[in-house]
Amino acid sequence: MRLQLSTWPQVEDYLESSRGIIVPIGSTEQHGPTGLLGTDALCAEAVAVEAGKRAGIMVAPGIPVGMAVHHMTFAGSMTFRPSTLIAVVRDWVTGLAAHGFERFLFVNGHGGNIPTLQSAWYEIHCETREATDRGGKGRDLRFAVQNWWAGTQVKAYCDEVFGPADGSHATCGELSLMHFLYPDEAPTTAGLEPRVAPTSAYHDAEHFRRVHPDGRMGSDPSLANADHGGRLFDIAVTEALGRYETLMAEE
Amino acid sequence: MRLQLSTWPQVEDYLESSRGIIVPIGSTEQHGPTGLLGTDALCAEAVAVEAGKRAGIMVAPGIPVGMAVHHMTFAGSMTFRPSTLIAVVRDWVTGLAAHGFERFLFVNGHGGNIPTLQSAWYEIHCETREATDRGGKGRDLRFAVQNWWAGTQVKAYCDEVFGPADGSHATCGELSLMHFLYPDEAPTTAGLEPRVAPTSAYHDAEHFRRVHPDGRMGSDPSLANADHGGRLFDIAVTEALGRYETLMAEE
Amino acid sequence: MRLQLSTWPQVEDYLESSRGIIVPIGSTEQHGPTGLLGTDALCAEAVAVEAGKRAGIMVAPGIPVGMAVHHMTFAGSMTFRPSTLIAVVRDWVTGLAAHGFERFLFVNGHGGNIPTLQSAWYEIHCETREATDRGGKGRDLRFAVQNWWAGTQVKAYCDEVFGPADGSHATCGELSLMHFLYPDEAPTTAGLEPRVAPTSAYHDAEHFRRVHPDGRMGSDPSLANADHGGRLFDIAVTEALGRYETLMAEE
Amino acid sequence: MRLQLSTWPQVEDYLESSRGIIVPIGSTEQHGPTGLLGTDALCAEAVAVEAGKRAGIMVAPGIPVGMAVHHMTFAGSMTFRPSTLIAVVRDWVTGLAAHGFERFLFVNGHGGNIPTLQSAWYEIHCETREATDRGGKGRDLRFAVQNWWAGTQVKAYCDEVFGPADGSHATCGELSLMHFLYPDEAPTTAGLEPRVAPTSAYHDAEHFRRVHPDGRMGSDPSLANADHGGRLFDIAVTEALGRYETLMAEE
Amino acid sequence: MRLQLSTWPQVEDYLESSRGIIVPIGSTEQHGPTGLLGTDALCAEAVAVEAGKRAGIMVAPGIPVGMAVHHMTFAGSMTFRPSTLIAVVRDWVTGLAAHGFERFLFVNGHGGNIPTLQSAWYEIHCETREATDRGGKGRDLRFAVQNWWAGTQVKAYCDEVFGPADGSHATCGELSLMHFLYPDEAPTTAGLEPRVAPTSAYHDAEHFRRVHPDGRMGSDPSLANADHGGRLFDIAVTEALGRYETLMAEE
Amino acid sequence: MRLQLSTWPQVEDYLESSRGIIVPIGSTEQHGPTGLLGTDALCAEAVAVEAGKRAGIMVAPGIPVGMAVHHMTFAGSMTFRPSTLIAVVRDWVTGLAAHGFERFLFVNGHGGNIPTLQSAWYEIHCETREATDRGGKGRDLRFAVQNWWAGTQVKAYCDEVFGPADGSHATCGELSLMHFLYPDEAPTTAGLEPRVAPTSAYHDAEHFRRVHPDGRMGSDPSLANADHGGRLFDIAVTEALGRYETLMAEE
Repeated sequence: MRLQLSTWPQVEDYLESSRGIIVPIGSTEQHGPTGLLGTDALCAEAVAVEAGKRAGIMVAPGIPVGMAVHHMTFAGSMTFRPSTLIAVVRDWVTGLAAHGFERFLFVNGHGGNIPTLQSAWYEIHCETREATDRGGKGRDLRFAVQNWWAGTQVKAYCDEVFGPADGSHATCGELSLMHFLYPDEAPTTAGLEPRVAPTSAYHDAEHFRRVHPDGRMGSDPSLANADHGGRLFDIAVTEALGRYETLMAEE
Repeated sequence: MRLQLSTWPQVEDYLESSRGIIVPIGSTEQHGPTGLLGTDALCAEAVAVEAGKRAGIMVAPGIPVGMAVHHMTFAGSMTFRPSTLIAVVRDWVTGLAAHGFERFLFVNGHGGNIPTLQSAWYEIHCETREATDRGGKGRDLRFAVQNWWAGTQVKAYCDEVFGPADGSHATCGELSLMHFLYPDEAPTTAGLEPRVAPTSAYHDAEHFRRVHPDGRMGSDPSLANADHGGRLFDIAVTEALGRYETLMAEE
Repeated sequence: MRLQLSTWPQVEDYLESSRGIIVPIGSTEQHGPTGLLGTDALCAEAVAVEAGKRAGIMVAPGIPVGMAVHHMTFAGSMTFRPSTLIAVVRDWVTGLAAHGFERFLFVNGHGGNIPTLQSAWYEIHCETREATDRGGKGRDLRFAVQNWWAGTQVKAYCDEVFGPADGSHATCGELSLMHFLYPDEAPTTAGLEPRVAPTSAYHDAEHFRRVHPDGRMGSDPSLANADHGGRLFDIAVTEALGRYETLMAEE
Repeated sequence: MRLQLSTWPQVEDYLESSRGIIVPIGSTEQHGPTGLLGTDALCAEAVAVEAGKRAGIMVAPGIPVGMAVHHMTFAGSMTFRPSTLIAVVRDWVTGLAAHGFERFLFVNGHGGNIPTLQSAWYEIHCETREATDRGGKGRDLRFAVQNWWAGTQVKAYCDEVFGPADGSHATCGELSLMHFLYPDEAPTTAGLEPRVAPTSAYHDAEHFRRVHPDGRMGSDPSLANADHGGRLFDIAVTEALGRYETLMAEE
Repeated sequence: MRLQLSTWPQVEDYLESSRGIIVPIGSTEQHGPTGLLGTDALCAEAVAVEAGKRAGIMVAPGIPVGMAVHHMTFAGSMTFRPSTLIAVVRDWVTGLAAHGFERFLFVNGHGGNIPTLQSAWYEIHCETREATDRGGKGRDLRFAVQNWWAGTQVKAYCDEVFGPADGSHATCGELSLMHFLYPDEAPTTAGLEPRVAPTSAYHDAEHFRRVHPDGRMGSDPSLANADHGGRLFDIAVTEALGRYETLMAEE
Repeated sequence: MRLQLSTWPQVEDYLESSRGIIVPIGSTEQHGPTGLLGTDALCAEAVAVEAGKRAGIMVAPGIPVGMAVHHMTFAGSMTFRPSTLIAVVRDWVTGLAAHGFERFLFVNGHGGNIPTLQSAWYEIHCETREATDRGGKGRDLRFAVQNWWAGTQVKAYCDEVFGPADGSHATCGELSLMHFLYPDEAPTTAGLEPRVAPTSAYHDAEHFRRVHPDGRMGSDPSLANADHGGRLFDIAVTEALGRYETLMAEE
């Protein structure tokens, strides 16, 4: 159930039987010379929506931009400052919590979001704690994140079919998912040089570009295809649902 | 051209010939007992994407949540605090401006966004001005908004076919557009009571709910349908393109 | 009744019988080569104070600086960043609301303030809403704005006596009001070139100066005088009182 | 010269020969059962304006509300949070500095403003310093404050004529100045009980009210009158001018 | 009792019998060519810890960086922006207040901290006041500061033994305290030129360096030694305890 | 070399040959019924200072409070809101960077700090990036963190000597380090019930206390002692130096 495709009475009904919701969070940032800028946002949203559909879970609108300052030397990349993203997640959650949602599974598409996302949860916990200390109504808010690309089975699949050339940015895994989701948008990977991108730590955006001149980290995009994407999609959805069930089952 | 479905070299190419971009901004808020919560976000995004497609204009990812505090007494409604939305628009624009975008047409789906959106532009102008005063590189950023539902031709069409029962929230116009865009999601409007919702000014969310108990303002959703939606979509896209051309033509 | 010229017991008494207050909000910004920088602040304050006097309404101290970034290329112009102005209005209102004021009519002297002023109201509504959600005491705060220059009768008068040369910045209407209020401060308008200033849209402060080199927009200040000002003052006060009555009468 | 009663070319002319400006800063807060809420704002503004008039110094619009949280248990008192007041002073100064003002004498009417006012200066210095570190154009901004009631001669006069019953809040000195400035607004001081208010340290607003039940601290308002006020006004203006000259003469 | 060297049950026990706590606040900033950068932080912490030890008072961890923007032209100096320091003090206090601490004596080592520290207290009072206005649980928080170097007896001692060459920054008094606390770290003062540093007002960091080229203000560090430091330490601790007792005794 | 025990000329000299600095960051939070509240801050600071001493690296003052909201239901625990901690780290780094420091190794004592610390680095990178985009002087700032308890050799040692009863909060490892550093402060662990604390995930502070009633997570503090602490200290210092060398060697 997508919240954006529900009416308010439908959400009210849903809350009678569940306090859980899935929130996609992505990023709009370069994914190498052949990967699409929306990869992280679109993959996370697709996995979340399909998980919601399969299990009747409410899915909030996705956060389409993330924390991606290190990609800003590549055209089209966007980023929130961490302080902005904290405010965004805080408002996203606070609004939903006002209606009664209490368990939030974030389906995340971008590694760079993780620290700020967790910081946002802490910021919310601080605010709740202080309100409670002042005699306000407490809230039992709980958060979890499923980084779809890092699920055990997803990783196992990628290791098996892509090996080390899966890479760590603009990976074969996420590019495959995009081939599956947007089959008409696949840019050619012919002529990529080098075929497998270099691997190296990076610091700020200028440093990133210096050590990763075309934006890829360690990946060979020519290995990606829609068949792998379809299989990965199914695994990622299953793993997201597993994470959701664990969150809901906690006492 | 959707930025999220482009690669960074494609964005770099685009910037060779144009400095303009369209940014959809919506809201996720109740639209009466039969309207979908995502109406404002999904309509704005659809109009923007189609406009971009027709005229080869880059379209940024849409802002899916807006300033909708007055709807917060209805389940599922979300809102940014204005201060958060200002930061969001500021980061959205600043990131794109870093790559060279200088003309921003916001295609807006929600009246409640307008003041805060304009405030955000002023906040950006303040920041630019102060940087320039300190000797920093200036930026000639220009902003405009097309409230798709308020275009001359869109309004004329709605006046003609819906008359006063178009209403001012959960309007027949926007509900028709949603019927057109999401034909499978249309909840029944049978049994709405009263058929035409009351019209009244409102202040905060509690007041809104008191004077508009089911969330509609002045509208009769039973008049909405996909045929009208298709026609309105086409008009709205045309008007958005007109506004974009004006913005780009200004000296 | 000016709050600043009242004692605290007098304010306490006033609150026994009324929850309404008028808040002037202006701007300190260039008004063309002959208009005074304080025009928007001083006109708004004068209209508000006179309205309060006539009808026994409490009048808060005025906000003397507004959102005027687009005037910053002219010496002496001042501006709040929107984020600051939101905090200012928020503190202004929150302090007064702590004592029991609940209906706020802002008498505004500057068009550029409107979006940020409304954003500030929304920010306050968000804060109130969240406090209520946490079990805090609700507040039924209501806000309205009277843009004194845009009242129906004020506009009718200006249309009649100034015609199109009233302009849209440094207008004959506001300059006349200043002649009436500050008869000794009137700079000569002799030799203005062109007599009627150009009209054109603008974006940031540099653009404004380029298209409006002396600061005026469309006006011919030589048409302004104290007699018109006196008449406009009376009309503006009457219209402000009408707006206040409507606000107080709302259920 | 009041900036609000100048045109932008007049300010431009002024800046040819001077970089100095006087900024009044006051407060709107209870001044005991007979003192006017605007005492601190109106006294500071009057002293500043007269000083400007005598010596041809530009005077900015005054900040009418200050940091007065400890007075908030008395009806009509207003306060900025310190964080807001810092932003206000920062924008006030930054706007004026953009035009070339570099020396700011604040004529202050309220002791509670001092720490936050100084913090605001430091905040501005931090911002300037960081901009300079990044290669931005430096600014030689200098700030000073004249607390009009605390000038050597003002204090000597008050000590002589009022003795200890001058008090430390709602003092005979400031009430006298208000009698002089607003002779028609003087509430009677007959029947004040006790005639001389208690003196005691205070912490927050509730504590203040407990130890100072009618709002006065140590003063006997019946000693105040317009004659003393007129004399104090003259002394305060002279001392403010002396402080301004010192500021301008510093290397 | 140092809070950092206590267990949580020990703190819980302490709160059974006392609501008071001492908070050291210092600065890390240049102290002339021979003074250590940590002087203000280390002196304040030492005085606070010893006071806590003598009288069984809980001592919070110290704030090691303060507001010292005017020292930033000397290598190694650090500063909080005032807005950051306000947030720091606010969180420091709010966390401790959540457990029941209500009386806070700040033992301060740096004059430049005073305005911002007081602003932070006001910010906390504003927050408490607003929470109470909304029906939240009130808090009777009280703050005081002991500037160790400015206690009556400390000053008397320094006047007597150092005379005017004590100076006002990198003073003989604080340098002596550091000699006593860190006897192995004493840099030589041989060859200082001039022996007694100049005295002069300053504005921003560049101005400070211009008028105080080696960082000292008015002091002759060669007069400082560990014996004086030991005596001053004892006096400062005694005065801090006196101030604490006064705070606790207030009704 | 501790920065706080250096003079400004010494720091200036240091910067001639190195751009690297170590910054300790800890937390003040409950460490079970027998662990000291300052464990995370004091361990991090000690490891950092010793590392600096051994290798002649400058060590900044430590940040004594961290992000520890989940411990706030235990007396004496303190926390920064993430937004405050981001500002703190930002000011800490910005001040040092102004003097020329460019490589920052944070020696961290608290797992809960990690996301916010990383968010702070991103916030700084955003600020630097935007300044550069505006033409400002770039900065090649690089950050790394050494979580002393999580170094490969530290973990190996703890696994070997403590096994699973090392736990994950108030661990035998960190308690041992505190025994070593503060041998006189060791509270008895006799009678702890259960001897090995339960292990469980947690969400907010109330949940934490419910599942970890005495504050420990999985540890048996009776296994900790000063001998193990001494050995761990040495290993942790060695690993921190290794991490520093890697950071400095990166191109």
